[in-house]
Amino acid sequence: MWRQNEIEVATRGRGFHDLTAQVQAAVRSAGIRIGICHLFLRHTSAGLCITENADPQVRRDLERFAARLAPDGDPLFQHDAEGADDMAAHVRSLVFGHELSVPVCEGALGLGTWQGIYLWEHRTDAMRRRIVVTLTGEP
Amino acid sequence: MWRQNEIEVATRGRGFHDLTAQVQAAVRSAGIRIGICHLFLRHTSAGLCITENADPQVRRDLERFAARLAPDGDPLFQHDAEGADDMAAHVRSLVFGHELSVPVCEGALGLGTWQGIYLWEHRTDAMRRRIVVTLTGEP
Amino acid sequence: MWRQNEIEVATRGRGFHDLTAQVQAAVRSAGIRIGICHLFLRHTSAGLCITENADPQVRRDLERFAARLAPDGDPLFQHDAEGADDMAAHVRSLVFGHELSVPVCEGALGLGTWQGIYLWEHRTDAMRRRIVVTLTGEP
Repeated sequence: MWRQNEIEVATRGRGFHDLTAQVQAAVRSAGIRIGICHLFLRHTSAGLCITENADPQVRRDLERFAARLAPDGDPLFQHDAEGADDMAAHVRSLVFGHELSVPVCEGALGLGTWQGIYLWEHRTDAMRRRIVVTLTGEP
Repeated sequence: MWRQNEIEVATRGRGFHDLTAQVQAAVRSAGIRIGICHLFLRHTSAGLCITENADPQVRRDLERFAARLAPDGDPLFQHDAEGADDMAAHVRSLVFGHELSVPVCEGALGLGTWQGIYLWEHRTDAMRRRIVVTLTGEP
Repeated sequence: MWRQNEIEVATRGRGFHDLTAQVQAAVRSAGIRIGICHLFLRHTSAGLCITENADPQVRRDLERFAARLAPDGDPLFQHDAEGADDMAAHVRSLVFGHELSVPVCEGALGLGTWQGIYLWEHRTDAMRRRIVVTLTGEP
């Protein structure tokens, strides 16, 4: 059994956007008991990731880590067609990931207690981001 | 055809734990000839990865690289609810990964000769870690 | 429905090799309308990734970023059985990834406009690299 649809997210610029409830709802309504939920971001300057969902400080620390690893305007980078955050965003997308497979267990996302699914916007501007959600499994 | 089960691993603190034989056994007993084996760690402070399985020095070097990239007690981090290794572990989990899809080829894991599957514990304490193994394919 | 085959790529040493057209052709000929295309590199010193496909400077900047993150001959590394680029290649493979799942949408890869699929060779020598392509979905 296969289900596929697209989610569009309007980001408010750099930062984390919790998608867990939205994806959980799509899984619960699909009628799949055992399977896989695959999320794919159709962009190379933002990301999809699973991280700790309890303390917002974790996401702030991840943002600070990303800024140290690949800062905006890094003199290493020559590609800056869309600004000082352009190449930094491509690097972050690659290092932190932009697609996820999550198991479906007993009809719901098989996440651990402290796991949340996030769209991580790496551009400083607000953007429209498209995510392909593909669900497969057995009822 | 779908098969799903959970593996629990008791780690001995930070380091690599070889899961290859255990996952290979699950694949071989599933009766799937062509398919995918998906491994999903239900935690955000440890990882799942594939790396070189021959020279243990490779894993020691990876550990040293991780310690340089995101050291325990890094002054950049404010989240330290569970100690100096708490946020370092979240960062490492995200950078080095915590879920894997491996092809099933002719009834076994389609790994290359030098590839091993590892649980990478990023916390310094011994922990209990749960991994969801989802197998799908055709007989 | 399942299809599986292996691609072999002869690299010219370190750098990016565009696989998009080759994978797209495999997907189009498989007769799958909705599904997943999984790519798995059977090596631990090269990678598979999706990044920006328009400006070649992006890939040059990624290469420079990788060289800063994990340089050849890094004094941190002790594993150098195959040379100064050996351990650097293992680290890069892990950080930037070596397997990909891409949705199949309406019979083709569901990539965004600016996304390309690349084999990223991390060794300085020319190598032969094997990739398992696993396709599953419904017609």
